[in-house]
Amino acid sequence: MSIKITGVGSFIPGLKRKNSDFLKHEFRNNDGSHFPHNNEVTIEKFKAITGIEERRYLEENLCTSDMATVAAQNALEDSGIDPETLDYIIVAHNYGDVKNGSIQSDSVPSLATRVKHNLRIKNPKCVGYDVLFGCPGWIEAVIQAQAFMRAGMAKKCLVIGAEALSRVVDKHDRDSMIFSDGSGAVVLEVTSEEGGILAHESATFAYQEAHHIYFGASNHSEAANDTRYIKMNGRKIYEFALTEVPAAMKTCLENSGKTISDVKKIFIHQANEKMDDAIIHRFYKLHKTPMPPNVMPMSIQELGNSSVATVPTLLDLVIKGKIEGQELHRGDVIMFASVGAGMNINAIVYQY
Amino acid sequence: MSIKITGVGSFIPGLKRKNSDFLKHEFRNNDGSHFPHNNEVTIEKFKAITGIEERRYLEENLCTSDMATVAAQNALEDSGIDPETLDYIIVAHNYGDVKNGSIQSDSVPSLATRVKHNLRIKNPKCVGYDVLFGCPGWIEAVIQAQAFMRAGMAKKCLVIGAEALSRVVDKHDRDSMIFSDGSGAVVLEVTSEEGGILAHESATFAYQEAHHIYFGASNHSEAANDTRYIKMNGRKIYEFALTEVPAAMKTCLENSGKTISDVKKIFIHQANEKMDDAIIHRFYKLHKTPMPPNVMPMSIQELGNSSVATVPTLLDLVIKGKIEGQELHRGDVIMFASVGAGMNINAIVYQY
Repeated sequence: MSIKITGVGSFIPGLKRKNSDFLKHEFRNNDGSHFPHNNEVTIEKFKAITGIEERRYLEENLCTSDMATVAAQNALEDSGIDPETLDYIIVAHNYGDVKNGSIQSDSVPSLATRVKHNLRIKNPKCVGYDVLFGCPGWIEAVIQAQAFMRAGMAKKCLVIGAEALSRVVDKHDRDSMIFSDGSGAVVLEVTSEEGGILAHESATFAYQEAHHIYFGASNHSEAANDTRYIKMNGRKIYEFALTEVPAAMKTCLENSGKTISDVKKIFIHQANEKMDDAIIHRFYKLHKTPMPPNVMPMSIQELGNSSVATVPTLLDLVIKGKIEGQELHRGDVIMFASVGAGMNINAIVYQY
Repeated sequence: MSIKITGVGSFIPGLKRKNSDFLKHEFRNNDGSHFPHNNEVTIEKFKAITGIEERRYLEENLCTSDMATVAAQNALEDSGIDPETLDYIIVAHNYGDVKNGSIQSDSVPSLATRVKHNLRIKNPKCVGYDVLFGCPGWIEAVIQAQAFMRAGMAKKCLVIGAEALSRVVDKHDRDSMIFSDGSGAVVLEVTSEEGGILAHESATFAYQEAHHIYFGASNHSEAANDTRYIKMNGRKIYEFALTEVPAAMKTCLENSGKTISDVKKIFIHQANEKMDDAIIHRFYKLHKTPMPPNVMPMSIQELGNSSVATVPTLLDLVIKGKIEGQELHRGDVIMFASVGAGMNINAIVYQY
């Protein structure tokens, strides 16, 4: 028995926001103080570190569950399965549906229910639920789907990651430029083919790391009210991720029975280009192997960090030949890896 | 191999709210119109249908994750296990942490991370995540934990249900009197003992039923702003639940290999006394068997409907001898069942 991805899809929102669109924002430090330089310099530094040139925002009339629905439809069409044969619909997100102009998250009913409703699936035995696990939520939902399959509880699962971070950013926080919106989805099936999910690794670091990413007040104290926004301690996350992500990936690879030279592509959460690059360099260093060129497809330059959506979206883009110089071939060993609020880390070794 | 509950705990919030505390509320119908009678009559009718005399609200300085932590501590102490040996902490909720006076839900980091942090658990291999599945979320999380165990991914799981509905009720909606706050938790372990989880059943009815429970505007149009509250279509839920819950329970019991005469207790989600009673009567009617007296322990009279928390709290109260005339004995076959937003339904047959 193996567990394979038989369909993949994504939704890339229509509103393009370039770095220059932030030139007139009034950015502040966390303590409310002004930056010593102008926005041109702030944005230049931002781009040098994160690699982000533009990002996508959800259209005003849409919510996260709408994006999830489109990505799901694409993955279902790609797989060719009858949606009524699905055993599970799992949606990873962190903020639910936040309507444009609202500060309330809405996850009742769950986003999985909304997607199932939108897809017009009738079969009640197709169970829909949502997972909250920070940015690594989509990978974690894949791990959960494979658990149901190994336990004999499911044969076909639709696993979606969707987030609209544009609805929860503080416009006075420079980090707001990192965040974006999007959705990606896969259909997972039990098959008799070779390959599929070979190993996985999950971890939650909550002892000292629980609040590296949190919901907090605006950096602009004069704009102060009770509204809270997505916030992060970038420096602590960088140090944490650089130590723990390569280690978790190494364990995962060892458990898969494959070696570093087998790895053809690594789909890492598009958090920050410099950090991602440093993580993968460190991963190869742990194996005393030089990092091969082209091993790490990236979409962050144009799509930003859309949380749970980055990894499945990137997979969809590579499989569909939409990232120049990147492709997958049957039998290729690939890895997924992510890090985010929790702090949670996970990884999967997968044979395509 | 069997999967058994080795520890159980709950947290019952300290603020008691009697029905008479609602006498001065300005209740409206969904269309904003006034009731044709006074609050004494409204409350009397309410009590006759729901059975609720009082409910518990969370203290102002606490949030849902605080309740989850206390219930977890109690369950861990009851089990006697070292918390560092846990493979999973799963928290079922639907609204995250909503601070008193705020309308924002906060689930970043996840409530599982917060509980793990509060419990001072260091082991990163103890993975914490949250499940959103409406009121049946705690039972669903138990089903997920057993999947991880059957798949060989876990041996010990802490499964918590926690909700503070007092933070999301519309005080102009008569249904606000139904809702309450609380938390319950169990430790599940793989054991060589007999019994444990014998069968489970889950379903999501999203085709026509997705919006029976939803987040909506206040009934008081003059108080109208964008704030949304927990809302439900009680009549539709009643009709739906009365058909689908007994059927799901029957399938679950059949799959367990046990018969209706084996069933000693049914722990049903404390949604509404009349509805719960009608569901269990229908369940016995499907088996052409009279409903035995005392088969259905109830806590709704004093604790109201605390969503995901009702079933584990009720289990804790019965096991600890806190509900008069109710007790469990080793070997007893019991059932858990729930219904809620999604609309989701689930059931478990368990041998104590």
